[in-house]
Amino acid sequence: MSATDQSTAPLVISVDAMGGDEGPAPIVAGLARFLHQDRDAHILLHGPKAELEPLIAKRKLTKSVTIVDAPDVVAMSDKPSHVMRHGKSTSMWSAIDSVRNKDAAACVSCGNTGALMAVSMIRLRKAEGVNRPAIACLWPSRNAAGFNVMLDAGADIRADEEDLLTYALMGASYARNGLGLSRPRVGLLNVGKEEHKGRAELKVANDIIARAAPLGEFDYVGFVEGGDLPSARVDVIVTDGFTGNIALKTGEGTANFISESLRAAFKTTWFSRIAALLALTSLRRLKKKIDPRRVNGGIFLGLNGTVIKSHGSADETGVAAAVALAAQLGRSGFSDKLAARVASAAALGQDDAATSDAPAAQTIQPAPNKETSIK
Amino acid sequence: MSATDQSTAPLVISVDAMGGDEGPAPIVAGLARFLHQDRDAHILLHGPKAELEPLIAKRKLTKSVTIVDAPDVVAMSDKPSHVMRHGKSTSMWSAIDSVRNKDAAACVSCGNTGALMAVSMIRLRKAEGVNRPAIACLWPSRNAAGFNVMLDAGADIRADEEDLLTYALMGASYARNGLGLSRPRVGLLNVGKEEHKGRAELKVANDIIARAAPLGEFDYVGFVEGGDLPSARVDVIVTDGFTGNIALKTGEGTANFISESLRAAFKTTWFSRIAALLALTSLRRLKKKIDPRRVNGGIFLGLNGTVIKSHGSADETGVAAAVALAAQLGRSGFSDKLAARVASAAALGQDDAATSDAPAAQTIQPAPNKETSIK
Repeated sequence: MSATDQSTAPLVISVDAMGGDEGPAPIVAGLARFLHQDRDAHILLHGPKAELEPLIAKRKLTKSVTIVDAPDVVAMSDKPSHVMRHGKSTSMWSAIDSVRNKDAAACVSCGNTGALMAVSMIRLRKAEGVNRPAIACLWPSRNAAGFNVMLDAGADIRADEEDLLTYALMGASYARNGLGLSRPRVGLLNVGKEEHKGRAELKVANDIIARAAPLGEFDYVGFVEGGDLPSARVDVIVTDGFTGNIALKTGEGTANFISESLRAAFKTTWFSRIAALLALTSLRRLKKKIDPRRVNGGIFLGLNGTVIKSHGSADETGVAAAVALAAQLGRSGFSDKLAARVASAAALGQDDAATSDAPAAQTIQPAPNKETSIK
Repeated sequence: MSATDQSTAPLVISVDAMGGDEGPAPIVAGLARFLHQDRDAHILLHGPKAELEPLIAKRKLTKSVTIVDAPDVVAMSDKPSHVMRHGKSTSMWSAIDSVRNKDAAACVSCGNTGALMAVSMIRLRKAEGVNRPAIACLWPSRNAAGFNVMLDAGADIRADEEDLLTYALMGASYARNGLGLSRPRVGLLNVGKEEHKGRAELKVANDIIARAAPLGEFDYVGFVEGGDLPSARVDVIVTDGFTGNIALKTGEGTANFISESLRAAFKTTWFSRIAALLALTSLRRLKKKIDPRRVNGGIFLGLNGTVIKSHGSADETGVAAAVALAAQLGRSGFSDKLAARVASAAALGQDDAATSDAPAAQTIQPAPNKETSIK
């Protein structure tokens, strides 16, 4: 069975049942919520069969969910190198292999990020032209889509200028397929907007991303700062995985701190308690807008297959959101589109190097016919 | 006149009138607010005399403020290297020279951060044992003090393991003198709490900061993540200036985005409009708690003198907060205390290297008498 190339067959998503902090229960609850809204999808659920069967039966999901028995679990404390060597019988490995074997269009796991990336790398392999795969996350923003894309959110602690260019191409492709933006605006995260600021590799990346923009079919806005992550002047923010991870956790931490402080403020006086009741609907709407659970699902970009990393602490809502994202990207054939995009950029990059005395604008401009089918 | 060593003389603070985005008016307004609450302080205000005199006269501040004529202004777009070569007649240069000449205990400027750091470096010089000075900022937090200290917030885009150790010592000293914490808890910012995570220099820094903790009279909590910046498990967060700057602007950007969204939420329905009125006092209290203007004032650490960088867009409240911080640190003799702390650590570090086969705990333990006077 091949879920990715038979458009009449139901969409199949592979899910690791065992990665979450609270075990499989919230994951099955999330699946139930997702399947309630997406009745054409089918789930391959990986984990210890004896443990999962009663949970699936209780939720009456036996028709939509096929359990794939995998006795072992990757712990949050397991080192990626250990899982790579000894992880063949884990639910995570099994879930990724369903994508490798083309039994599923995409995979979702709440497990250990490092291990998930390591196993994804060895089982799915890097796409042609990709040196370092990246994790892209959605960032609540002032844009109409409600979100910006930031990558790398922590797949690799390093990125050189070529990696940053690849991230720009992959992030733009994800924004087209995940957020429906036909011509995303891409920015490079730095400590200031001025061209002379920042590390040496950022100055080089600034030049090569600007030159690749016509080919990548995105608009390059130049350097952006931390304050631009939720801004409406950019759709895709490119950075290395160390900086991206710190920024992501800083943003989440700040939002949680303000949210806590707000709850406390509403409890200070009787007036404010009444106010909280009156404002309940509006505040719920706001919470929904900036709720990290709704944007749950970092996506691994640059592999031969789509893998979505959900928070370890994801609850029912978070898991449902991650699986819904997997379904959307699976249906759009995103993985193949992204691979074609990066491969054509790599090929043109080689042309560019071979004919480096020709004007830059000419060498990076693709033949129009060749590009129209690639998103 | 020496403001720093004559405790009977009034405290003198040097202020650059011309650095702010809106010119000298908000700076003079901020001074008026500060001087209303701190009547024992005196201000040396640097800038074009003809422009400042009417502002000072209008606010009736002529007794508390002495204008130091400096005709030129450092623009936000000026490169630091240009200001270092051609900036002698600027208000920024003049304001720093008041600290150099010991006419003032500390200096405040809203100007161009890069230029302010560059001029501070050449006029005040780095303190003994400091390779890279840092900017420390206050971060709203769950701690009783209401703030954590983060450094480097952007003085330098690089930091090696020795620099990070110096930041730990300087940050702890600032937390003692600025926040009144007798034994600050210090953490090192990384992409995970586990010891095997992060860049190579962070693993080395993790070891040497842990060993220096008894000497620095702080508790080292190990690696912390972006989400810990507002947390109560740490008081001082150490990182390089690139990461720190991104984190700071990400935190500010997130807070502004939520604040905007909240205002919009309170306008959606009639119920929510009434709610906003009822909750006004509580919300104002919250705003005050997390208002970036109240924590205005990054401080340059590691120079022979105290320099405070205020936001370019600081208003009256922000300027008053920055000058009040300068006054507090000036009165505590902070600059000398910090220099003694770092110098003694550097000296002990040399001892440590010379006798590296001796147990670490023994070599970094200072003689108790020697340390008691240093904060």
